[in-house]
Amino acid sequence: MATSTQPLDASRLSIHLTTTPREVPIPGSKTATGCTDHMIIADWTTEAGWSTPQLVPYGPMEMMPSASVLHYSTSCFEGLKLYRGHDGNLRLFRPEANCARFLRSAQRISLPEFDPEQVQHLIRKLCEIDGPRWLPKIYPGRFLYLRPTMIGTDSSLGFHAPRAARLFIIICCWPTIQSADDTGMRLVVSTEGSVRAWPGGTGASKVGANYGPTVQAHVKATTAGFQQVLWVFGKDDQVTESGSSNLFTIWETTDGRVEIVTCPLENDLVLPGITRQSILALLRERLDVEGSALLGSVKPVTVAERSYTMGEIQAAARENRLLGAFAAGTAYFVTPVSYIDYRGEGIEVPVGKVPYVALLQEWLADIMYGKVESDWAEVVEEPTA
Amino acid sequence: MATSTQPLDASRLSIHLTTTPREVPIPGSKTATGCTDHMIIADWTTEAGWSTPQLVPYGPMEMMPSASVLHYSTSCFEGLKLYRGHDGNLRLFRPEANCARFLRSAQRISLPEFDPEQVQHLIRKLCEIDGPRWLPKIYPGRFLYLRPTMIGTDSSLGFHAPRAARLFIIICCWPTIQSADDTGMRLVVSTEGSVRAWPGGTGASKVGANYGPTVQAHVKATTAGFQQVLWVFGKDDQVTESGSSNLFTIWETTDGRVEIVTCPLENDLVLPGITRQSILALLRERLDVEGSALLGSVKPVTVAERSYTMGEIQAAARENRLLGAFAAGTAYFVTPVSYIDYRGEGIEVPVGKVPYVALLQEWLADIMYGKVESDWAEVVEEPTA
Repeated sequence: MATSTQPLDASRLSIHLTTTPREVPIPGSKTATGCTDHMIIADWTTEAGWSTPQLVPYGPMEMMPSASVLHYSTSCFEGLKLYRGHDGNLRLFRPEANCARFLRSAQRISLPEFDPEQVQHLIRKLCEIDGPRWLPKIYPGRFLYLRPTMIGTDSSLGFHAPRAARLFIIICCWPTIQSADDTGMRLVVSTEGSVRAWPGGTGASKVGANYGPTVQAHVKATTAGFQQVLWVFGKDDQVTESGSSNLFTIWETTDGRVEIVTCPLENDLVLPGITRQSILALLRERLDVEGSALLGSVKPVTVAERSYTMGEIQAAARENRLLGAFAAGTAYFVTPVSYIDYRGEGIEVPVGKVPYVALLQEWLADIMYGKVESDWAEVVEEPTA
Repeated sequence: MATSTQPLDASRLSIHLTTTPREVPIPGSKTATGCTDHMIIADWTTEAGWSTPQLVPYGPMEMMPSASVLHYSTSCFEGLKLYRGHDGNLRLFRPEANCARFLRSAQRISLPEFDPEQVQHLIRKLCEIDGPRWLPKIYPGRFLYLRPTMIGTDSSLGFHAPRAARLFIIICCWPTIQSADDTGMRLVVSTEGSVRAWPGGTGASKVGANYGPTVQAHVKATTAGFQQVLWVFGKDDQVTESGSSNLFTIWETTDGRVEIVTCPLENDLVLPGITRQSILALLRERLDVEGSALLGSVKPVTVAERSYTMGEIQAAARENRLLGAFAAGTAYFVTPVSYIDYRGEGIEVPVGKVPYVALLQEWLADIMYGKVESDWAEVVEEPTA
């Protein structure tokens, strides 16, 4: 990109409000679908750089049938939530981490670069405008889902890095998945015929290309009564992700410690989740055997980011050492796992046997909904009505 | 899909011609870009099935920002060419093979099913309308490029098989790559950090998700002066594809035979190319050692679909047994390779040393441009002016 082209500049945001605002559903309710009233759009070309960002009414976009994204999957996105706190404030959770990852994903999929802080400003601006009405103060504890997205709009149909792209940010209602939360999710281990990610692929980036190819296995799993696919990798069935969330396993080691283990970030096999990273930090700070700030009666844990296999989970279950498992991500938050089907063998996973999942849910929710002060929460300004 | 929903039905095609036809560039010329005057569109939903196909003026389409294809890469496509024959006729090359593969790709990426024959009818109809003007009879030997595409248009943003989709067919001008044709392509072997396909992935389907993730390596290669990436797989660097084409290697075996070898279709590592399949058939029919119809002075060959490695190419080059290599696909036709950079070691590949590449080009072109009769060529009807 030539240095003379226009950088993405949130301060130039041009605002065009809708004249026909939608009726606001109760956020989090089953009937809450669709997006909020507005979206932000910025276009990019190799020649000009970034256009002036526009906040416009949410609605259809025009695209050439030959647009790069439709043929070559030149797309990446982010997922983060806007929370209505118990203190009445709107908050984002670690948005700078999402924006930094958004840039890394764009680089991986050959889309243009931008200053992540400018995207963070744009996200905040959209939340300032749609947040107050779509997350009414009378419903504390509710949230909306934000989806910053970038797509290749180059219409030349040649196979090269897109010479035109669009960045857009939308906000959607996202149903809570209450049933899975209560009783735990049932997972089915992926088969050899369906592999989510591999070294040298894009598993560590949030690009569209990770998703479409896995729908088939997901549909098969849900049709068979499971909530998600547990993606394994390699001949030894290394445990990687659960659906589109990071997976954590809790067990007692053979020498009697409690260990919480998750797949490492090496090899591009799993997404570097922001919930994952936050959980690791909280565990290390508050519950680690080496740490000082142990919590009353809760047994300290060893936190491990390392490759582990379905065989190890099987052995722990057989020896009564399996204490729990949970998926962690923005969409599914922290959701316990109750059952794993491993090529026909059922593994029962205890739910609620140890307090760690509930503690993590509480600690994270307290930050997201403003019960405790944290650097991880960013308050979104609202006009005083 | 419920059986009561509407199937895709080409006979119901509704035709809306443009009132502002574009000026036609000389097909194949460097200035020929963009698409022809019309496109065909058909929409699908789980509830209704397929809509009445529409032939409409080529132009932008409307899409919701939350459309499945933009986030989850639910897209697949086909590539085939319309040829203006030396006898004045328009021809398609094995379109039924493209349509059958189009269906398989749609199934792999969780898009709706259709009768491939109906897509073939729609392709033919679009060619009948845009072919006569865009491939004038005064330019025999020219071609246009057809791109049937299907995308997930479901706007619910949930992760599931799209409940709405669009099939469209466009025709584009495609520049001939004359320079590469003449002197042979320079390839660079992919690195560990960039792997195109994996067993259990989508390498054997023509889905968008195969392309975006490989742009980065392609850009790096072209910046370094190469035309394409030679994709290898596994610790032993198995030879798979070249760019988005199948790769064939010609060498003398240690026992003195001529062998033409290409990667097998097992393991989902390479696309089952229609040019690939046609080349294998032609070689087996006309040049195989076992066959009867040997060609005058041309030495017969052994045709092999089996895994082979960069080490074998290296050894053949070192022992002066490497006779040639070529990429084969719709976009690049049959293009010789002149040089392979293998992790810094240069391998010179002979161009024109043996007659097989030129023979295959001639045999295929003779069918495509109607110099010989063949079941593989389908004549497109034109109105008698």
